[in-house]
Amino acid sequence: MLSCMEDSAHDKEHVYRVLHNALCIASREPETDMDVLIAACLLHDIGRRDQFADPSLCHAEVGSEKAYHFLLENGFSQVFAEQVRHCIVTHRFRKNRTPQTLEAKILFDADKLDATGAIGIARTLMFKANHSEPIYTRLPDGQICDGTHNTESSFFREYKFKLEKLYDRFYTQAGAALAEQRREIAAGFYNQLYREVTEAEQQGKTVLNGALTE
Amino acid sequence: MLSCMEDSAHDKEHVYRVLHNALCIASREPETDMDVLIAACLLHDIGRRDQFADPSLCHAEVGSEKAYHFLLENGFSQVFAEQVRHCIVTHRFRKNRTPQTLEAKILFDADKLDATGAIGIARTLMFKANHSEPIYTRLPDGQICDGTHNTESSFFREYKFKLEKLYDRFYTQAGAALAEQRREIAAGFYNQLYREVTEAEQQGKTVLNGALTE
Repeated sequence: MLSCMEDSAHDKEHVYRVLHNALCIASREPETDMDVLIAACLLHDIGRRDQFADPSLCHAEVGSEKAYHFLLENGFSQVFAEQVRHCIVTHRFRKNRTPQTLEAKILFDADKLDATGAIGIARTLMFKANHSEPIYTRLPDGQICDGTHNTESSFFREYKFKLEKLYDRFYTQAGAALAEQRREIAAGFYNQLYREVTEAEQQGKTVLNGALTE
Repeated sequence: MLSCMEDSAHDKEHVYRVLHNALCIASREPETDMDVLIAACLLHDIGRRDQFADPSLCHAEVGSEKAYHFLLENGFSQVFAEQVRHCIVTHRFRKNRTPQTLEAKILFDADKLDATGAIGIARTLMFKANHSEPIYTRLPDGQICDGTHNTESSFFREYKFKLEKLYDRFYTQAGAALAEQRREIAAGFYNQLYREVTEAEQQGKTVLNGALTE
């Protein structure tokens, strides 16, 4: 579990938050197998370091196999290890691999919850910094891009292409309700950040043009 | 100027924002020497890479000398180079070294403006990630620290010790007014982030204790 601590967005505190989010959701889902869920939460990102070292790897795939063998080696049953493996391999958003069990759906939602609201904004900014990506990029005409029109990586692009769309992708009612409470702060932060950087630039350029033509 | 691009919080876009902030402030200060101000803005962080490589160095000191010699070598007058040097050496908050000229006060305020509001939050999170520091740390009893009670570096600590206090430290009226417009979003973001991470943890722990005693 502690093998994924090299990245500020996926450190051990992320694992604790996902665990606690999952427990909050599970308290509304009486059918949950708590042992499977807790093991899956604690182990869900153990493939992160592998993906960081080799971005062609998928941390969900690598991590699910690692967790499966770890559990078997430590005396857990094959059924238990398979249940945890399914949770981990489906926790990453992929069209061809979706959570089928209740525990997998809860882990998926608990992990996505950590990308909503203020914590989602904070983690995304740190993730971008760790990958040497900027807050925003510019369009060919020099204007600051709001994240919708270009393909270069940036915080604005990640917000527009991923964070903003997360809120409709929850499997459990409790997960969706918790996410909804956080939607406004994230949208407000993005909008204000865009306003701050574009307004100062527009006003500054006007002053500069005035000074240069004097 | 482009030598400071290794850090997401002090990349070339930071330099542009400081320049535009400074021009906005200068438009309310008709006595401003625009040439001195523009040169000082463009060159203010050229000591950053030196400080990043050797944290015992002060980027304001190193940068001011670099800028001074750069300007002299490129045909600017000694008086001009000295004025720019004063702006740069005093742009970092230090009790024993404060801005004395109007241009130095404007650069100081323009640079501090980029640490207010949503942009200040975003840059601080990226700076923390680049220095492998976390969003928050924990007190000895395991509770999440809100940033006021410990000395370990974190985003919460930086917010409480620096960002929150910035708003009363502006030299120019225009700078203080621009900062004031951004105070609420920054405070709101910090408060919401603290609430998100502590509430989910409290609720999750309650559920966990219930599950463990069943």
